[in-house]
Amino acid sequence: MRIKTLTIVGVGLIGGSIGLAAKKRRLAERVIGVGRQQCSLSQALREGAVDETDLDLAAAVSRADLSVFCTPVSLIAGQVLASAPDCKEGALLTDAGSTKSEIVRAVEGGLPDRVFFAGSHPLAGSEKKGPQHADADLFLDRLVVVTPTEHTRPAASAQVAEFWRALGARVEFMTPEAHDRAVALTSHLPHLLASALAGILPQESRLLAASGFRDATRLAAGDPDIWAGIFAQNRAHVLSALDVLERQLALFRSVLLGQEWQRVHDLLAHAKKVRDDLGS
Amino acid sequence: MRIKTLTIVGVGLIGGSIGLAAKKRRLAERVIGVGRQQCSLSQALREGAVDETDLDLAAAVSRADLSVFCTPVSLIAGQVLASAPDCKEGALLTDAGSTKSEIVRAVEGGLPDRVFFAGSHPLAGSEKKGPQHADADLFLDRLVVVTPTEHTRPAASAQVAEFWRALGARVEFMTPEAHDRAVALTSHLPHLLASALAGILPQESRLLAASGFRDATRLAAGDPDIWAGIFAQNRAHVLSALDVLERQLALFRSVLLGQEWQRVHDLLAHAKKVRDDLGS
Repeated sequence: MRIKTLTIVGVGLIGGSIGLAAKKRRLAERVIGVGRQQCSLSQALREGAVDETDLDLAAAVSRADLSVFCTPVSLIAGQVLASAPDCKEGALLTDAGSTKSEIVRAVEGGLPDRVFFAGSHPLAGSEKKGPQHADADLFLDRLVVVTPTEHTRPAASAQVAEFWRALGARVEFMTPEAHDRAVALTSHLPHLLASALAGILPQESRLLAASGFRDATRLAAGDPDIWAGIFAQNRAHVLSALDVLERQLALFRSVLLGQEWQRVHDLLAHAKKVRDDLGS
Repeated sequence: MRIKTLTIVGVGLIGGSIGLAAKKRRLAERVIGVGRQQCSLSQALREGAVDETDLDLAAAVSRADLSVFCTPVSLIAGQVLASAPDCKEGALLTDAGSTKSEIVRAVEGGLPDRVFFAGSHPLAGSEKKGPQHADADLFLDRLVVVTPTEHTRPAASAQVAEFWRALGARVEFMTPEAHDRAVALTSHLPHLLASALAGILPQESRLLAASGFRDATRLAAGDPDIWAGIFAQNRAHVLSALDVLERQLALFRSVLLGQEWQRVHDLLAHAKKVRDDLGS
């Protein structure tokens, strides 16, 4: 795969890493970074994540063969639809949003015929943000979910998959709905839990918050704006995942109250098995 | 501080690390490791964590000036009381158990007059176990809580504190009750949550369990035997901590249901502040 002009909208951790990865692998002749603040664009330029920067979204996307939208999920669909009319004939668009149903539905409902879109979600990143944490190998062996629907042109999802593979990622295809249901439990619920746990730590116990507490709450350091947006877009699935968790907590409560130590042991042993299978 | 004979009962991660740390810092002339299985004792000997091994608990403790019990919490009090009658006049005993009230109460209720005990809990360790993961610097800058009561001889808790400081740790004094209440929230509840979360991961979503899920569930890899014992000893406080968490989850549920995004943001922002203050 060889892209003449790659435009990255939003040059934070993910956008910056895409730029670095594409340049390291000589995937794009030219990488344009788009943002709303010159400050982070200049940082991305200094890091070598982009070749040029532009504050004008539509202008930068109009020059691209492939544009990747790496902005907060609440902005993506609006930005795609605002810039699509200026796109080249046959331009390909994708995004890196953590939620897919709302974005894909909105975009596919309003895209001009001569422009193609397939949604994607790289399961990479961390609680860190900003182009200064960008990493050319962020996607290496990481999973990217590409989410075609019956409205997605097959060539578009195939090319988007090829793009992520060229950055070192593994690709799986899922419907936006199946993706959102699954990540509600594997990503959004863990974030909610980490935030709930951090939120109840009494001031006087901070001294006793050792490595276990730090691991369990690491996700809570994520950006509240970004995460409030994710919860807003995936609210129903997150609430369902919370239901499942609360039933599991009720089970733990019941066996602790009943001093059913064999069952406590069995619950812990099952969880250990699942966790061990995931690897470090 | 200089100990003639240091006996370590239980040479797993914690016991093995105490041995390595004491030897590295030339704190003890002789370190004896006690265990029930020759296999892990031999491993500890090979790692250089102990100088001698003994399968006979009372015999090894009888030779010690200081004995540290690093066995599962359900065994500690029984082992201390079983070996105390054979101790030297003035021998000092402590433990490394993650719970303190039951252990300290049982030990202080049955100790001979000429032997001294102060409970302690090093907040170090990990989901790993066994002497092969022992680390001479495991306690460096880590917190150790020493838990004297009105029955504890002040010189005993002072010497136990000095011992841990000599291994590189910081020491805080708390009552066993205050310790158990605090760690129920900072350590035992996070473990329960990690286990609950790992336990509800559907088989088909394992592929989507990325670094966030792994961090949030890391604790679930801990030994189910050890953790069932900890939950048994600290059951009331763990249930209270679970109450607090469930109220916080109910709050998250309510603001998500009500689509109160500013309040969602505020909850996430407060949690981020707490987590950021803890450091990495």
